[in-house]
Amino acid sequence: MIRPRFRAKDSVRQNAELTIALDAMGGDHAPQVVVKGAAIARTRHPKVKYLFVGDEKRIKPLLAKRKALAKVSDILHTEIAIGADDKPAVALRSGRQSSMRLALDAVADGKAHAMVSAGNTGALMAMAKFALRTLPGIDRPAIASFFPTLRGESVMLDLGANLECDADNLVQFAIMGSIFAQNVFGVLEPTIGLLNVGSEEMKGHDELKQASAKLREMQLPGIYHGFIEGNDIPNGTTEVVVSDGFSGNIALKTAEGMSKLYGEFLKRTFRSSIAARLGYLLAAAAFRKLRVRLDPRRYNGAMFLGLGGVCVKSHGGTDAFGYANAIGVAVDLVIQGFNDKLAEELARIAAQQNAALPPSAAAAI
Amino acid sequence: MIRPRFRAKDSVRQNAELTIALDAMGGDHAPQVVVKGAAIARTRHPKVKYLFVGDEKRIKPLLAKRKALAKVSDILHTEIAIGADDKPAVALRSGRQSSMRLALDAVADGKAHAMVSAGNTGALMAMAKFALRTLPGIDRPAIASFFPTLRGESVMLDLGANLECDADNLVQFAIMGSIFAQNVFGVLEPTIGLLNVGSEEMKGHDELKQASAKLREMQLPGIYHGFIEGNDIPNGTTEVVVSDGFSGNIALKTAEGMSKLYGEFLKRTFRSSIAARLGYLLAAAAFRKLRVRLDPRRYNGAMFLGLGGVCVKSHGGTDAFGYANAIGVAVDLVIQGFNDKLAEELARIAAQQNAALPPSAAAAI
Repeated sequence: MIRPRFRAKDSVRQNAELTIALDAMGGDHAPQVVVKGAAIARTRHPKVKYLFVGDEKRIKPLLAKRKALAKVSDILHTEIAIGADDKPAVALRSGRQSSMRLALDAVADGKAHAMVSAGNTGALMAMAKFALRTLPGIDRPAIASFFPTLRGESVMLDLGANLECDADNLVQFAIMGSIFAQNVFGVLEPTIGLLNVGSEEMKGHDELKQASAKLREMQLPGIYHGFIEGNDIPNGTTEVVVSDGFSGNIALKTAEGMSKLYGEFLKRTFRSSIAARLGYLLAAAAFRKLRVRLDPRRYNGAMFLGLGGVCVKSHGGTDAFGYANAIGVAVDLVIQGFNDKLAEELARIAAQQNAALPPSAAAAI
Repeated sequence: MIRPRFRAKDSVRQNAELTIALDAMGGDHAPQVVVKGAAIARTRHPKVKYLFVGDEKRIKPLLAKRKALAKVSDILHTEIAIGADDKPAVALRSGRQSSMRLALDAVADGKAHAMVSAGNTGALMAMAKFALRTLPGIDRPAIASFFPTLRGESVMLDLGANLECDADNLVQFAIMGSIFAQNVFGVLEPTIGLLNVGSEEMKGHDELKQASAKLREMQLPGIYHGFIEGNDIPNGTTEVVVSDGFSGNIALKTAEGMSKLYGEFLKRTFRSSIAARLGYLLAAAAFRKLRVRLDPRRYNGAMFLGLGGVCVKSHGGTDAFGYANAIGVAVDLVIQGFNDKLAEELARIAAQQNAALPPSAAAAI
């Protein structure tokens, strides 16, 4: 069994009464994995209710086999599903009755506290922005995820929602990431790094230099460390890694590929001689622990931060354990009151910046 | 002993008579590592001569201890060295008598066939462009390096020389990388991938889409695969990975960091129990081979491609083994006639493109 990574106290998790809307038609193995994932999640936080949005004819038989889950579940029927290759604009225009959109609407209408989808990322982000809106003070939501590091773990954003970002976007990502680290990692003053190609102030694009200058001046919910480089991500140099969506996506996927490369090299090494095979037998228990720690399913559940509701994206190809972790991420974001804390902090920063302006300028805003 | 990665036949390597200029003052441990590195390189290609450029007072005593190396070495004296933090523009303006610049000039003047420096990358690129010029058909040189993959190895470029690239730059990098793979990996038709955040044609920046369209239409020295993602780099999906210098640098450094992370996790795992420690003893020989294969010193020596001369950048903090590998990279680029082949191919492509234009347009060029 894969343990959830989140830090919410077990007592809080177990007593949390909330409803999660699940896009039952999103993902490579939907709806089976969605229902099975919810069944696993149910054992972790038994008081959570589920709203399965999708084709009733396919969901009902799956729930029928899981009585305990069926008791805490409702179905919102629709036969329309967003395809994995549908363009975001098309999904937005013609997917109003899709399982993805109706799950988002359930959050927008207060019928659910959060939603999870393993469907098309671009479509989900486009529809989430439309259905949930962005929080005041946030121009663009970002995709955030955990990253295992030498020192523990860090949060990285943006991972692909915004291929080009201006300095203000990057500053907003830094604030969101920092509040996330405070509330989820429990770090009082998280350190924030801006991903660049060198740590010297003169390096990188203009947007990065401007963002860096702003972050140095601001009173942040954390400590601005400065520029960091790619190797600083796995090193855990900072708890929050901020980047544009293009660079962040390249870094994340390269890291995923390196994990696969090392896994394969390790396998080949242990198979390369009889002594190595025996060595593996002795070290097997220790390696099992490492495998569990680095299991990509444990890191499943990318968060769309900056929206007026909790929306979590599961990997499309994950299994039920991975899906259950994505549900866990959604539950914990709700339990931790992440969005309320983010909204408070954004309001504080806005007030502070108004106060810092000369009176006439402040009045003009 | 770390074996060189290059594919030049040993007989060719051993009989190659050429001169390599070494920036004896560049790098964290210069000139000791430079001299020691050359001594190691000498055992691999005994007929290569070295021109040490730097402070005679410091180089001479080091050579005095290595008689065999001293016999094939000359010293070009200068006391001026480029600092690790010197800005490229400053180095270019006021570093005309520096060891780095004089080593480059030796290549430009035909006194050496190639140069190696472990000094400041930005200064080296700026001075190399000035001293060696770019090849006709190349607007901007790129930094290229090897990358170990599941399938063997690939070449990646640009790794940081050009933070922003237009479509033509990327197309030129693809051609350079492909000719490199042909001549160094010995692959007849290398596959070329363009690093992006998704493999669909609609993804990514405009420059990437334009470059992709051009690469599809051109007759290349290789096969254009299309867009690839970060995980495709370690997977070895293509033999050539093309990117702008910003993304390439982020990918490379993230991969380096991941190697360190896995090395550390492996160490901790083998130390985590008595059984695991015993297991390590049995598997130690197999792991030694893996360590050798992934030793970053084996991948030392980034090539500045697209210049009118061979210029190789060693990691600033490497040891003598790593430095010797960087010398090996320079030797092999010369032996393989890489620059001549690149120039030929660029001329062929230019002629082809002129022929493809309507007569009036061709005449107007």
